[in-house]
Amino acid sequence: MITNAVQLRPVLADLAAASRILAARGVVDGFGHVSMRHPDRPDRFLLSRSLAPAMVTPDDIVEYGLDGEAIETDAPKGFLERYIHSSIYAARPDIAGVVHSHSPSMIPFGLVDVPFDAMFHNAAFLGGGAPCFDIAEGFGATDMLICDCAKGDALAGRLGSHDVCLMRGHGSVACGPTLQIAVFRAVYAEVNARIKTQAVTLAGGAPVVGLSVGEAAFADGPNRTAGMRAWDLWRHEIREVTGW
Amino acid sequence: MITNAVQLRPVLADLAAASRILAARGVVDGFGHVSMRHPDRPDRFLLSRSLAPAMVTPDDIVEYGLDGEAIETDAPKGFLERYIHSSIYAARPDIAGVVHSHSPSMIPFGLVDVPFDAMFHNAAFLGGGAPCFDIAEGFGATDMLICDCAKGDALAGRLGSHDVCLMRGHGSVACGPTLQIAVFRAVYAEVNARIKTQAVTLAGGAPVVGLSVGEAAFADGPNRTAGMRAWDLWRHEIREVTGW
Amino acid sequence: MITNAVQLRPVLADLAAASRILAARGVVDGFGHVSMRHPDRPDRFLLSRSLAPAMVTPDDIVEYGLDGEAIETDAPKGFLERYIHSSIYAARPDIAGVVHSHSPSMIPFGLVDVPFDAMFHNAAFLGGGAPCFDIAEGFGATDMLICDCAKGDALAGRLGSHDVCLMRGHGSVACGPTLQIAVFRAVYAEVNARIKTQAVTLAGGAPVVGLSVGEAAFADGPNRTAGMRAWDLWRHEIREVTGW
Amino acid sequence: MITNAVQLRPVLADLAAASRILAARGVVDGFGHVSMRHPDRPDRFLLSRSLAPAMVTPDDIVEYGLDGEAIETDAPKGFLERYIHSSIYAARPDIAGVVHSHSPSMIPFGLVDVPFDAMFHNAAFLGGGAPCFDIAEGFGATDMLICDCAKGDALAGRLGSHDVCLMRGHGSVACGPTLQIAVFRAVYAEVNARIKTQAVTLAGGAPVVGLSVGEAAFADGPNRTAGMRAWDLWRHEIREVTGW
Repeated sequence: MITNAVQLRPVLADLAAASRILAARGVVDGFGHVSMRHPDRPDRFLLSRSLAPAMVTPDDIVEYGLDGEAIETDAPKGFLERYIHSSIYAARPDIAGVVHSHSPSMIPFGLVDVPFDAMFHNAAFLGGGAPCFDIAEGFGATDMLICDCAKGDALAGRLGSHDVCLMRGHGSVACGPTLQIAVFRAVYAEVNARIKTQAVTLAGGAPVVGLSVGEAAFADGPNRTAGMRAWDLWRHEIREVTGW
Repeated sequence: MITNAVQLRPVLADLAAASRILAARGVVDGFGHVSMRHPDRPDRFLLSRSLAPAMVTPDDIVEYGLDGEAIETDAPKGFLERYIHSSIYAARPDIAGVVHSHSPSMIPFGLVDVPFDAMFHNAAFLGGGAPCFDIAEGFGATDMLICDCAKGDALAGRLGSHDVCLMRGHGSVACGPTLQIAVFRAVYAEVNARIKTQAVTLAGGAPVVGLSVGEAAFADGPNRTAGMRAWDLWRHEIREVTGW
Repeated sequence: MITNAVQLRPVLADLAAASRILAARGVVDGFGHVSMRHPDRPDRFLLSRSLAPAMVTPDDIVEYGLDGEAIETDAPKGFLERYIHSSIYAARPDIAGVVHSHSPSMIPFGLVDVPFDAMFHNAAFLGGGAPCFDIAEGFGATDMLICDCAKGDALAGRLGSHDVCLMRGHGSVACGPTLQIAVFRAVYAEVNARIKTQAVTLAGGAPVVGLSVGEAAFADGPNRTAGMRAWDLWRHEIREVTGW
Repeated sequence: MITNAVQLRPVLADLAAASRILAARGVVDGFGHVSMRHPDRPDRFLLSRSLAPAMVTPDDIVEYGLDGEAIETDAPKGFLERYIHSSIYAARPDIAGVVHSHSPSMIPFGLVDVPFDAMFHNAAFLGGGAPCFDIAEGFGATDMLICDCAKGDALAGRLGSHDVCLMRGHGSVACGPTLQIAVFRAVYAEVNARIKTQAVTLAGGAPVVGLSVGEAAFADGPNRTAGMRAWDLWRHEIREVTGW
């Protein structure tokens, strides 16, 4: 049983909806996951059991500790990579929502020497660029997965104070101070990747310059407030289908 | 109450449908907005309250003055960027429809030194190319938004006598002598951006030349007349879903 | 009344379905049209009245002469560009189906100096490449439309013995010995354009060589026979929705 | 009658669903096919009769021998290219699922001199790259189809011990130790092709390096186990529509 499950029912529905929102917008497919810090227990977080994102319901949510292990001993099987979430919540008290995805247009930026920065105001959270985590640097040849605390901590270390981190040969993470802002960032990071790829194509070798650091800092504010009408739309679309 | 609301009911339905048409065709997502000049009060315009475009209904339309402020004191919350519309209607008596979007394939053209001109006859309104508004030139580092009359006027100034204006690091505007033509232009500006990006890719450094200025001038005519069967299709698709 | 309309009812349904098939597969949007030679009157052809392709029904089909004019004096308004069809049927007795579209990935090939040839066997009809019609060569600055017999004849002349012709700054035509093969070619010409654009991107300046002329000649055969199971699928999908 | 048809009913449903899964995800269109080795008769395999993949039902499955001929003399018409499957099953006892498709983003890699290797962990089966079969090397100018045992054997020879083989001017094959893994690989090979094309675009001439051979070997494991939740999602989506 999740702590305060009855009172948190609307929150669990939002988290399950977030999973389906990301699937509906092509950020996740059969893989990827989204979590939120427990509203009443900042030392815990909420994440679906191992399940394709488009199939998650509120009843699939499991409560985890910051060690990445389920609180209840009889919890259903979790994602192999739940340590992505636990390590980021442990390292970053300001973060309350984390998305891990293989959103396809971002993956190339983890393989080439081209900055992944903000092409437009909705991607302002990329103002300072995004670091890239190379798992081989600390762990040699692996299956690329963040399957324990040591790897999760290394990823969180590379994320540092950024909100997005590329993962070489794998995917990316997007974080935010709320579940809704993390989802927004995961969606617009992928949009921004497509835009930058087209801009580089057009530029023909000339550099492509996006928002200045100052512009990005200013633009992040409205994204967090007025920008939430995107969430309102996406949440509405899921409710129309699921009833919750 | 909108001036002459009862008589204008079909017009308000068209404007709400325009919003959904643009969402259905990927020109707008959770953001973006479309307005029309008030048919009986050329010093006023009609625009949805702040709402995701796919959710707009005729009851969400609000009447605004050319200062960008709602006529009624108890009007619902408006878009931060309604000044895009007010300033263009004030500066351009020939324009009766305005679309603001972040349509993704146009954004790169605001970041690189490649002309955004007409690749085919449906984009004839781009015959003379499209200017790019850089908000930093007049306002330094900002949140990129057109959130007051001064910024709206600067954008309208850069638009000049064109029908489309790119906005660096933000999006674009597309305008027309009717709501329907403005929607048509917003849709085909995005299509044209994808086509030009592919043409530049194929050209491999050679210049890509689209319609001549003369061709564009001739081709704009049929777009405004026979071209309206695209609107008829799009309007029909919305009516099938909404009933209005 | 169309000649032999009662007996031709299934044929008219196929032609209306062809229009919707092309819309469903992104070859046509609000614009574009598909025709077939009249089965019993080779000096006439069948084409929808002026209407968005996705909305065409069997009752919208009109009978035309090879001068591009409707046989019946009270026929509904036709497409401005019906002369594309009439001129090709007049010049090419072997052709019984014609598609005109602005399918977006083909348009760049009319603007650059890159051959539009067959990248794979389903595009074998492009084996000899495709010519490009430049309306300005014979007619100077125009609205780009094929709006009379002279322009239609010039286009048919440029098509020559090919089955596909690019139209600079406009779109393309795809033809075949049956309606079904013409639709197949319009669909796979667009697919082939996307594939060639990606191949050119990957090649980084090296030439991209598709099917040899001999391979293309051989491969066109199975497309016309076994390849018709694509039509069977597409026709089935339309019937599921329309009932005809 | 398929050997052990009654007991195999769920297996036949999975195979028919695999066909629809590949259609739903854009790997196959009107063309392409997926087969599995007969679970009880390793010298036979199961494949739909000649039919568009999106229309296949369990009743359309036919049993074939490793010579590519139907076991039953009155079997319905089969695919011209069923020899792709028979030759691979004959040559590779470790393979129990084969997909042949024209998935569009892979075709360019058969036409250019760019390695098709794993950009991310879900494409780990491409760790050693993928060979390209050029039918002209052994057979001269043909219709490009694998329409007999000799051509099937030549393709299987080029596949060697790989799991994916490109086919110049045609398409590709993806194989696996189970039907489900073969489908997974066909889907992610296409995703990987799009990602590599974007990476090459961004790299601007610099080489793009994906997973190391060691990483790919490690990463293939979880794809075969935890990765099956993608199949679970896809299978669920088909069942929702078909009831089987």
